[in-house]
Amino acid sequence: MNQWLKEDERLDYLLAENLRIIQSPSVFSFSLDAVLLSKFVSVPIHRGKIVDLCSGNGVIPLFLSARTKAEIIGVEIQERLFDMAERSIRYNELEHQIGMVHGDVKDAPIHLGIEKFDVVTCNPPYFLAHEMSDKNLSEHYAIARHEIRLTLEEAIYSTSRLLKQGGKAAFVHRPGRLLDIITLMRANRLEPKRIQFVYPKFGKDANTLLIEAIKDGKPDLKVLPPLYVYGEDNQYTDEVSEILYGKEG
Amino acid sequence: MNQWLKEDERLDYLLAENLRIIQSPSVFSFSLDAVLLSKFVSVPIHRGKIVDLCSGNGVIPLFLSARTKAEIIGVEIQERLFDMAERSIRYNELEHQIGMVHGDVKDAPIHLGIEKFDVVTCNPPYFLAHEMSDKNLSEHYAIARHEIRLTLEEAIYSTSRLLKQGGKAAFVHRPGRLLDIITLMRANRLEPKRIQFVYPKFGKDANTLLIEAIKDGKPDLKVLPPLYVYGEDNQYTDEVSEILYGKEG
Repeated sequence: MNQWLKEDERLDYLLAENLRIIQSPSVFSFSLDAVLLSKFVSVPIHRGKIVDLCSGNGVIPLFLSARTKAEIIGVEIQERLFDMAERSIRYNELEHQIGMVHGDVKDAPIHLGIEKFDVVTCNPPYFLAHEMSDKNLSEHYAIARHEIRLTLEEAIYSTSRLLKQGGKAAFVHRPGRLLDIITLMRANRLEPKRIQFVYPKFGKDANTLLIEAIKDGKPDLKVLPPLYVYGEDNQYTDEVSEILYGKEG
Repeated sequence: MNQWLKEDERLDYLLAENLRIIQSPSVFSFSLDAVLLSKFVSVPIHRGKIVDLCSGNGVIPLFLSARTKAEIIGVEIQERLFDMAERSIRYNELEHQIGMVHGDVKDAPIHLGIEKFDVVTCNPPYFLAHEMSDKNLSEHYAIARHEIRLTLEEAIYSTSRLLKQGGKAAFVHRPGRLLDIITLMRANRLEPKRIQFVYPKFGKDANTLLIEAIKDGKPDLKVLPPLYVYGEDNQYTDEVSEILYGKEG
């Protein structure tokens, strides 16, 4: 197994999907948000083309491969994360379905094709560059978490250019950016159609937002039932547990 | 008691507040949405000036009078509803706190004063004029429910003009109009700060949206815990029951 791993990397289970993923505590580990987005997004089952922007170590393409036979391309700007994603894809023998591109999201439409894709997913950096208060943050985490190399506006602009008419854009973000994300989507021909808020516990404010838009879609927004992450017992709720670990026998 | 009532009107209890309200099944009855908005909006306790637009039979001013000592003005365009509201206010002996204006929301800033108010509430017509499929709808209900005499854009424009800097605008609407309401608020210097979605039951999509914005406020949106109206037993949840009927002994 060590042939697959570098430095402090681990080969972690994506338990619900019988897949493995290479992670490193010092560089990047996938978040629950990425997993929730992989389950939230509407994907074609049998054919089509999907792009995952800000793909990190490839967690969303890996999860999506269990839901669809469509071709999936992940785009990641950080070479170290791109390399981890590539090795995870080979380890899981998914090279026929998933390809990784080491590059800038802003260049993705030119490289991958304008209006060629059915679905674009994106778990972008959440925080504004000036919100970067933790000076000790590793560069890898800083770039993944803050709008240093990519703003939300740039991510949404690239998403819209990649998508065919009628194609779907699914993003995960913080509820505090709901207004920006809606405004930017509408300014880029992406009409929000489904929103789901994720609450850490019953009685708490939402801390995560899942949103799916359709390119040139008609206005008709649905707000889905809320998703709770932890129950009163501080354990994952059945719903989240099933997403992470699969259905119990 | 009959001295207060006309035709098929009834004198109904506003149970949570020991108030009475005049209603008529053929003309207008207040909705749960109006009650939820009365509880959702942030109001000053001891002083201040509040306007309720699209006030109907005055249910929001009546409910608010139990939460604040501020002066409250209700604006209603339909004479019949305005008259019911006035009689309910007199019946409850609240003339010192609540005044009704029979007029158009679009004229309210000119009549009541520009940037003079701390809070504006509004339970506007929900449906677009062209969505008026029920031809048998009474004119009173049609005007209250459809954007015939007032569009959402006009309501938000008047709201912003009425409000002082830092004043609060609270609206109730359908989630399908979330994008419009946010876009129109931001275009009118109203920054959304608190959103709460109301779900008819656990596991169903939201069917009502409560939103509060601050005039010239800084962007910082909170999405409050969801509110469920009915429980699994098809009875009001404890939370809604308490809003409607008050706390149980």
